[in-house]
Amino acid sequence: MLLKRRLFTPGPTPLLPAAQTAMASAEFHHRTAEFRALYSRVLADLQTFVGTKNDVILLASSGSGALEAAVSNLTSPGDKVLVLTAGKFGERWRELGRAFGCTVEEVSAPYGHTFSAESIAPALSEVVRAIYVQATESSTGVRHDVGSIAQLRNQHAPEALLVVDAITGLGTTRFDVDGWGIDIIIGGSQKAVMIPPGLAYCAVSERAWKRMESAKNPRYYFDLRKERKAAAKGESAFTPATALVAGLAAAMDYIRQAGGEGSDPKTALIAGRNALIANAEIAAAMTRAAAAALHLSLFAAESPASALTAIIPPGQMDSSVIVKAFREQFGAVIANGQGEMKGKLFRIAHLGYYDYLDTIGIIGALEQVLASLGRGHFEFGVGVKAAQLVYQAARAETQAAKPA
Amino acid sequence: MLLKRRLFTPGPTPLLPAAQTAMASAEFHHRTAEFRALYSRVLADLQTFVGTKNDVILLASSGSGALEAAVSNLTSPGDKVLVLTAGKFGERWRELGRAFGCTVEEVSAPYGHTFSAESIAPALSEVVRAIYVQATESSTGVRHDVGSIAQLRNQHAPEALLVVDAITGLGTTRFDVDGWGIDIIIGGSQKAVMIPPGLAYCAVSERAWKRMESAKNPRYYFDLRKERKAAAKGESAFTPATALVAGLAAAMDYIRQAGGEGSDPKTALIAGRNALIANAEIAAAMTRAAAAALHLSLFAAESPASALTAIIPPGQMDSSVIVKAFREQFGAVIANGQGEMKGKLFRIAHLGYYDYLDTIGIIGALEQVLASLGRGHFEFGVGVKAAQLVYQAARAETQAAKPA
Repeated sequence: MLLKRRLFTPGPTPLLPAAQTAMASAEFHHRTAEFRALYSRVLADLQTFVGTKNDVILLASSGSGALEAAVSNLTSPGDKVLVLTAGKFGERWRELGRAFGCTVEEVSAPYGHTFSAESIAPALSEVVRAIYVQATESSTGVRHDVGSIAQLRNQHAPEALLVVDAITGLGTTRFDVDGWGIDIIIGGSQKAVMIPPGLAYCAVSERAWKRMESAKNPRYYFDLRKERKAAAKGESAFTPATALVAGLAAAMDYIRQAGGEGSDPKTALIAGRNALIANAEIAAAMTRAAAAALHLSLFAAESPASALTAIIPPGQMDSSVIVKAFREQFGAVIANGQGEMKGKLFRIAHLGYYDYLDTIGIIGALEQVLASLGRGHFEFGVGVKAAQLVYQAARAETQAAKPA
Repeated sequence: MLLKRRLFTPGPTPLLPAAQTAMASAEFHHRTAEFRALYSRVLADLQTFVGTKNDVILLASSGSGALEAAVSNLTSPGDKVLVLTAGKFGERWRELGRAFGCTVEEVSAPYGHTFSAESIAPALSEVVRAIYVQATESSTGVRHDVGSIAQLRNQHAPEALLVVDAITGLGTTRFDVDGWGIDIIIGGSQKAVMIPPGLAYCAVSERAWKRMESAKNPRYYFDLRKERKAAAKGESAFTPATALVAGLAAAMDYIRQAGGEGSDPKTALIAGRNALIANAEIAAAMTRAAAAALHLSLFAAESPASALTAIIPPGQMDSSVIVKAFREQFGAVIANGQGEMKGKLFRIAHLGYYDYLDTIGIIGALEQVLASLGRGHFEFGVGVKAAQLVYQAARAETQAAKPA
């Protein structure tokens, strides 16, 4: 059959058509009143989307640029920082801490697992200047419990700043950013917000802004204070990625629309953000149920994320073969394991612009791929059936929750 | 869940992204060498796509414009024409014949059926000047056997011109246009060629060009001879729909790519056209198998088309309810019955830019829609299972046919 190229990777994710159109027609000079208005609107919308009163900063970089900013702006050489690692992205925090001369203390959980309170508490001490963690470890498909980690910080090391890489967490997971006291939370454009890579955003607490006064690590392009000053005037410190900003504005409008008509713009955006999270949750639950019905095990032994599902290939099979079969048979791009997990798992994304048909379609494709590789030890349709039941139950719940 | 607007209607059909991009950036003046080259290329590609040596004419109109051209250019008032009707589109031929003062003889089959040779043969006589028929009656989902009709014409009324509305037939059905002696065959842009409505095309035989010399019915905008003269210079008689022409060129390139690399452009386009037809055939076979597994009957009692599948709603249910549920629950636009068949059937399209995931997705949605309407007298997954088996068998056949 025809092959449509379809991204099922946990970033980049499928593009929102309205954002594509906005990007294609974006021809702005960035030092104009027109663009300043757009930029300010996007920053305000992101603040609502993140769910915080903290200032939001937008960077023309991939998410990793904002990770660097959260290290270089908050630390001085020799500072002790705690890094929580349970996968490839956790390890990126370690590398960044070391690159900026910090003394990196590490609490790690095995790949596929998350941290216990018992393992974190002893590592927290007043001398820890900052804690770095992922909301979702996209390399393993595990969600870390940021709320509990924040609570442990409050108890054992209240002065430590909490920095959360929520690049695949925002729009797939519920956060109480200000209530929990997250000092920096980071997102990226090519994730739940449905546009191409090239923008990172982060919300920064007053405590974090204050820390920057004394933090001595060098930074220039990623100097967040410079961006905050520019943002107050509707500008960016350096040339902004104008087309992506226009795309992000369109994505925020789309999410607002999904939140329903009749309510004020801010309330609608919050409702839309919650609908986007629920969407990923349902797609993830459908996929997990299908995997179980097809006798497949999840790589996330506990706390599976809604952003993506990491699945272990059947019987020692190399997951690269499965990834290749999805691409060649169906044009569907799913993700292999990363680094040392390459060949050991495959990952199907749910974050952002996916709907019911995408989800049922990729589950059907999974059934075909396994059968074509001689691993069809199931009746066709059983994976889809399990997913249908999950969808039906979720829909019944939504219907029941609607006001009469 | 999020709703993506998805067209499953037998025209308009889903847009090819490469065509959208080409249309968005098409800013041509039509009386330039650049546009003349594009126009000539599209006409040559359409000739290959239709599979004919006859000249192809492109019109800035919907398909119905070309239907009118096939009446006004070939007939004189009082001419006897034979119209074969078995649905709403067949009836359009009757209306057109009458509008241009022809004496319309009609052979009709009940909705959902096609014509028998026994019913057509007696209506053919030397005085019939032209025969008008659909290749696919999109209102009922029935394919008419154009090859057999052509043979009957050759036997019983060799002077009669054969005109085929193949608006949903081209790209879904195999024709031997020149071998069978089809005098005019008509296609439309919003069908298997994956671009928006606004263009019609037709291939015209030498016999038909000759008939135009004596045909006395009035025509101006749809004067095919005027277009033929302009086309010889890479132009159109009136202002062409430039962006759609650019989109059609991109669509022809896409179909050529689907035909495989390494072969010459013409051979590749023919192979791609055949792949496009096979794609519709497989999607249609998957959908018919799913319908049967879900205890649904096809409206086409015989000779079901590959362009679309028309399904009878279960137990006297109004199909409008089903069409609405697809749209509201899944954002999927399927077609209701037309005219007097409204409420009595629903139609799911397969022509053009559909792939495996679309097909499995819409079948999954059909299961959910029926269940949500209290008609889920089946286990979830049985429709998908039936479709999976059809897909698997078709894939095995394709694999077996590949050179080692």
